[in-house]
Amino acid sequence: MFETAELGRRLNKAEFESKLPALRSQLLDAQFKMRGRKSSVIVIVSGADGAGKSELVQRLNEWLDPRGVETHAFWDESDEERERPPYWRFWRAMPARGRIGIFFGSWFTAPIIQRVRGKIKRRQFEAELERIVAFEKMLAVDGVLILKFWLHLSRKEQRRALERLEEKNRATPTDWKHFRLYKKFRLVSDQAVCATNSRMAPWHVIEATDRRYREFTVGSILLKTLKENFQAKPTAKPAPPQKRRGKPADSILDGVDLKQKLTDKEYRQSLERLQARLGKLAWVAREKKRSLVMVFEGWDAAGKGSAIRRVTWAMDPRLYRVVGVAAPTDEERAHHYLWRFWRHMPRSGRMTIFDRSWYGRVLVERVEGFARPQEWGRAYQEINEFEEQLTEGGNIVAKFWVHIGADEQLRRFKERQTIAHKQYKITEEDWRNREKWDDYKLAVDEMVARCSPPTAPWTLVAGNDKKFARIQILKTIVERLEASL
Amino acid sequence: MFETAELGRRLNKAEFESKLPALRSQLLDAQFKMRGRKSSVIVIVSGADGAGKSELVQRLNEWLDPRGVETHAFWDESDEERERPPYWRFWRAMPARGRIGIFFGSWFTAPIIQRVRGKIKRRQFEAELERIVAFEKMLAVDGVLILKFWLHLSRKEQRRALERLEEKNRATPTDWKHFRLYKKFRLVSDQAVCATNSRMAPWHVIEATDRRYREFTVGSILLKTLKENFQAKPTAKPAPPQKRRGKPADSILDGVDLKQKLTDKEYRQSLERLQARLGKLAWVAREKKRSLVMVFEGWDAAGKGSAIRRVTWAMDPRLYRVVGVAAPTDEERAHHYLWRFWRHMPRSGRMTIFDRSWYGRVLVERVEGFARPQEWGRAYQEINEFEEQLTEGGNIVAKFWVHIGADEQLRRFKERQTIAHKQYKITEEDWRNREKWDDYKLAVDEMVARCSPPTAPWTLVAGNDKKFARIQILKTIVERLEASL
Repeated sequence: MFETAELGRRLNKAEFESKLPALRSQLLDAQFKMRGRKSSVIVIVSGADGAGKSELVQRLNEWLDPRGVETHAFWDESDEERERPPYWRFWRAMPARGRIGIFFGSWFTAPIIQRVRGKIKRRQFEAELERIVAFEKMLAVDGVLILKFWLHLSRKEQRRALERLEEKNRATPTDWKHFRLYKKFRLVSDQAVCATNSRMAPWHVIEATDRRYREFTVGSILLKTLKENFQAKPTAKPAPPQKRRGKPADSILDGVDLKQKLTDKEYRQSLERLQARLGKLAWVAREKKRSLVMVFEGWDAAGKGSAIRRVTWAMDPRLYRVVGVAAPTDEERAHHYLWRFWRHMPRSGRMTIFDRSWYGRVLVERVEGFARPQEWGRAYQEINEFEEQLTEGGNIVAKFWVHIGADEQLRRFKERQTIAHKQYKITEEDWRNREKWDDYKLAVDEMVARCSPPTAPWTLVAGNDKKFARIQILKTIVERLEASL
Repeated sequence: MFETAELGRRLNKAEFESKLPALRSQLLDAQFKMRGRKSSVIVIVSGADGAGKSELVQRLNEWLDPRGVETHAFWDESDEERERPPYWRFWRAMPARGRIGIFFGSWFTAPIIQRVRGKIKRRQFEAELERIVAFEKMLAVDGVLILKFWLHLSRKEQRRALERLEEKNRATPTDWKHFRLYKKFRLVSDQAVCATNSRMAPWHVIEATDRRYREFTVGSILLKTLKENFQAKPTAKPAPPQKRRGKPADSILDGVDLKQKLTDKEYRQSLERLQARLGKLAWVAREKKRSLVMVFEGWDAAGKGSAIRRVTWAMDPRLYRVVGVAAPTDEERAHHYLWRFWRHMPRSGRMTIFDRSWYGRVLVERVEGFARPQEWGRAYQEINEFEEQLTEGGNIVAKFWVHIGADEQLRRFKERQTIAHKQYKITEEDWRNREKWDDYKLAVDEMVARCSPPTAPWTLVAGNDKKFARIQILKTIVERLEASL
């Protein structure tokens, strides 16, 4: 792939300077047209050491309206970053809709360097590249324009570039170390570029020997992409979602035996035993630097909140955080729907308990039509890939659907209306949701069927008897922890 | 202060259970009334080891509507926290308006422990307490209700509590180590509580021996406070701000010699020399783990953006971030005005360059009446205290006001209207701001007069000649760095 970038292309000063004003004003114009659009842009700047990546980043910052641009350099990880799944740092830097993020370094950097240094096997490297493809696709379909630039230098040119840097005291020992691995770097980079070059997130390999040529070329490609995407008027709003109605013939939820219950005595004994056990396991997880993510979903009034309290009550409050998921803020709305959950990912040795979660995408957003069918339709796969990142390295994801019967729900709704400190829990919306019971049931079925990898299975909780449900949840968590620690 | 909390107060089970339902429903009701208010609530839970802080945190979470509550435990700092001013982690956890934050540990924890262990001198300790008083006052006047609870145990009771924890395997070696320092702890805590007990952020010392008594008492105090503050209707909107008109007789800006200029040659030579120097200094700062915060303010069209680029162009883009300050997001609006700037504070060894800054509070917000006179009036002191935190430990704050004459501004406005790639830079607002030149001048004068501590002085930049301005700025930064590193 790199041979085409060794043709000796240059741009002379006169030509560069005559063409530049038009490029700049058109870039600003194109950027201006981004405002209010649902898209954001990520410009990835990567390539050989000494190829002028740093200067290119500077130049783009000069050419674009700085109010809509942010630059993120990914190099030395902080421990907060190291203690979370590797992609957390990229989510953290994700530009909001209408904005441009210039990424100096990216999700390519670590896999390529690790592969060159022989720290990961070929198979792992390929798996990383597959992850990148899926990740970029996910962003792209959400409206993120991804432009990837690879600044290429031939071996000879790289040596020359490093020598020039050396004169300015700016070459680092790592640069030379990498240079000695030139051939290997080239091979691995070529593989990475080829494997992740897609229509949705294309690579542009740029001949980097001549500063004016490389900068003007990158600017032109950026301009072309912006124009293609933002010159036209936004497409019309999609047709309203078609509702799939109809009662599912065999719902997985019907298999939950809601008659299961516990006596007060059984409950108290199990509760005490399991909470004590959980309290200790939480500290063991801390010591072993394992993180735990719990997800609670379920019908309105199923008892999620009180079950969560029985879990948290067992543990030192310094070890966990409960995140109640309500309407998104505008910053959250300006990002991919998973962004707001990435924000709350626990560091290693900690837990986050989500009271409702990313599954809202395939539950409420699906049923209420807040997401289009193609949006929630692709979410299953996106969620699986997301959770795969969470469970890597022995971290634990436990997901609970707290199930109750429709009759039991009605009984609890009525009870809530009469008990003073429970009234705040019942709203008009709850009654409206109740009417869509069958739609939700269908959505739950599909969610459980499609998002149950062995490392992050769903537990369907029999919730008609609150005592039974709480014990079932505690027991599941304790067992998962014991099996993993 | 603690003697009153050793009276043996208890609450028997029957009484507790009879009173609890009313307390809970009223708490929820009071919490409900918070919604849409401009206030947030911080509940600080502190006190002796073994006094039941953790249980109390759990209990409050049980009693309140979890959708409006978040709990933050401040214990083991991450390196991202350690590498920033100590209060960064508290800003990070600040609840948004309408929400309650329960703080398990707080800004009191570190100073008290450090003082008990003899790590800081009495004078430093007192300075820390003064900082706390100012900080809490700043939050309180911004509408944050701060409730501080100190759970107290006598020495005898603490021993008993730790023994009980020991039985459950939950006492830590630190707990016993602290217990052996009981007397010292009591003395230091007493001093902290007395010195920081204010009407705006009062302490409540709670006798903690009896679980029911301490939890019910805390719940009742919380309820009372919420009721007092949210039962009444919000007060009417304040009268529109009175504008202080009038041309300042002797403006500090008039002292800036706008005739200063550089020839092209002088400019090129100085630029090259200073940029090379700055490029190296940035790496030295990185090695010495010093952070640098730069603030650029100035008239519209004064050349802030292009001056910033001359600064950044000199440095490795991995070492700095430019933050352009535009309209706040809704998450930012839901917090104290300084919150959005705390978000961007650099880690040690990095820089953040603010293109417009917190000084907006005393410039545009003052002149346009977005902030009330008492709000911008107190901001000077708040900003000084904020910057004091930034400059501690040898970190550097450099502030630039880029000054131009009114005629020069007019010339540049007209030029912007005719040059294609500059048109985006000129808006109706710029023309409107121009009409308020004298108001802004007054505001700049007061800002410079009141916010120029020796560690974070303003540099008034002569901006009529862009070349002169850029060199003046670069020179100042280089000199500040050389003096500090």
